[in-house]
Amino acid sequence: MNILITGGAGFLGQQLIRALLDRGQLDGGAGSQPIRRIVCFDQTEGAIVDPRVRNVAGSISDAATVDALVDDTTQVVVHLAAVVSGTAEADFDLGMRVNLDGARHLLEACRAAGHRPRVLFSSSIAVFGGDLPAVVTDATAPTPQGSYGIQKLIGELLVQDFHRKGFIDGRAVRVPTVVVRPGLPNGAASGFASGIIREPLAGIECALPVDPSTEMWVASPRAVVRMFLRAIELPESAWGWHRVVNLPGLVASMHDELAALRKVGGQSAVDLVRHQPDPKVIALVRTWAARFETRRALEMGFVADASFDDIVRAYVEDNPSAVKLRA
Amino acid sequence: MNILITGGAGFLGQQLIRALLDRGQLDGGAGSQPIRRIVCFDQTEGAIVDPRVRNVAGSISDAATVDALVDDTTQVVVHLAAVVSGTAEADFDLGMRVNLDGARHLLEACRAAGHRPRVLFSSSIAVFGGDLPAVVTDATAPTPQGSYGIQKLIGELLVQDFHRKGFIDGRAVRVPTVVVRPGLPNGAASGFASGIIREPLAGIECALPVDPSTEMWVASPRAVVRMFLRAIELPESAWGWHRVVNLPGLVASMHDELAALRKVGGQSAVDLVRHQPDPKVIALVRTWAARFETRRALEMGFVADASFDDIVRAYVEDNPSAVKLRA
Repeated sequence: MNILITGGAGFLGQQLIRALLDRGQLDGGAGSQPIRRIVCFDQTEGAIVDPRVRNVAGSISDAATVDALVDDTTQVVVHLAAVVSGTAEADFDLGMRVNLDGARHLLEACRAAGHRPRVLFSSSIAVFGGDLPAVVTDATAPTPQGSYGIQKLIGELLVQDFHRKGFIDGRAVRVPTVVVRPGLPNGAASGFASGIIREPLAGIECALPVDPSTEMWVASPRAVVRMFLRAIELPESAWGWHRVVNLPGLVASMHDELAALRKVGGQSAVDLVRHQPDPKVIALVRTWAARFETRRALEMGFVADASFDDIVRAYVEDNPSAVKLRA
Repeated sequence: MNILITGGAGFLGQQLIRALLDRGQLDGGAGSQPIRRIVCFDQTEGAIVDPRVRNVAGSISDAATVDALVDDTTQVVVHLAAVVSGTAEADFDLGMRVNLDGARHLLEACRAAGHRPRVLFSSSIAVFGGDLPAVVTDATAPTPQGSYGIQKLIGELLVQDFHRKGFIDGRAVRVPTVVVRPGLPNGAASGFASGIIREPLAGIECALPVDPSTEMWVASPRAVVRMFLRAIELPESAWGWHRVVNLPGLVASMHDELAALRKVGGQSAVDLVRHQPDPKVIALVRTWAARFETRRALEMGFVADASFDDIVRAYVEDNPSAVKLRA
């Protein structure tokens, strides 16, 4: 079993690679097989050292580079490489090159390989926006309000058509806002939802730019990695003609987040969060979908986190060195 | 007023150019202005000779060619250039180059011009397909079942985002199946809906590949040109944030079409239609949407044909030399 993961050096990619190495095997359509090789492709080399992992650095927006990543032994491809929402909005051309051209190059490379590899595309609930119903369902029309969402939706459409044409075994999952992202703040407009847990737990002050009643549709990195594995291993027929699914998550208000923070980090952690409204962020977040009914995904066996408290506890378990304050 | 029409040498493009020349003026956002120049761009030169029309031949999939079409005096752009559904399905790469890359080149050229030209993108009801509700509404999620529909939907998304970013004043209309297309049969999978009127009226035998009860959502070339002009001239605010609209049409069954054919061409015309089921066409047409509720478009003042009889009568008026049989 040879696997390619683009964006593999990012925190989700690294967590996915660790989960794959722990499992040791994967079902890419021909039954469970031992994992022999994971190509971790990203702008910079991934940090995981393992005889099965080949770290490759390069640009996803370069067609020849991407073409060289897929050969006729590549059975599973996971496409995580992307510039995040805030960056795609600030640099339109970069977003188009990475998020749109990058996805297309990868799909063309998979098509050229000729053996119809299984491809999982990591999309986002950012494809929803604008005049949304109170609850987004599997039938809700995606109308993205940002370049990131537009580019992800175009990626989905390409996956859908490359699948229909028989070029790949394509799947796409719309990932909830991932909370708690470890590490440094990135360019994601939704970053504060992680920041108000991560920074106070590290003893660092942090701004909350939206009203505490603001709700978001969230999932932990653990849950997302688990759902990626499910998305890869589901038999082709479980997807039917529609190769895209909204993933389950939790509705979390910033109140909920602060309550969970208090349980884990104590009041001194909560005191590090300053409410500092940012009209630009408020206007953007207002267009996002927070409540979903993910019937199709639940029927397909995707499972969300049990509670927001669990999400924070998992973060503390997975990132002990980043946590200074404890209740 | 300087106008660019891509795909201008096609039958809709030529009809649109004639309508513009007849009017002599157009409102592109700064009030009605006399039309000074229409650039008719297509693979081959357009046939209309007029001091105001500049016929330019070239490839929409060549970025430099497309860039040279737009200058800082181009106020209105109508993007009709596309390979049709059957062709996009038969030659995937050609469809991607023309329908996706071509649209992107044109939008980039408009963006580079820097003055935010008004751009009308001709999309299609082919963006709908799959498990559709009995009636498609403005809220129905587009899930195209063919490469043509996928590429048109991607074009819409690009128009939407280029508009949101302030690069263009973008608008997109989802055109019903255009009936009756004059001239020779083309690569459109829906071509039979025109063929069973056009060919018998010309005294030529014609196959009906689907059951006569098959319904389609149709509009005449005259109605589509009228709706294009409306789409261009509507003030920007009439569109709101959502720059895409399903155009009104008529539900026509092939029974309805044959009844209209009988009125205009007599029984001898109807006798030239042979029912010759084609499983591939039947399977494709089954995924198309036939019944729409186009509330938003009606509120915006778009008007469909009055009846299918009117559609056939308009065809006969506009194409007298192509009609041999009359009732």
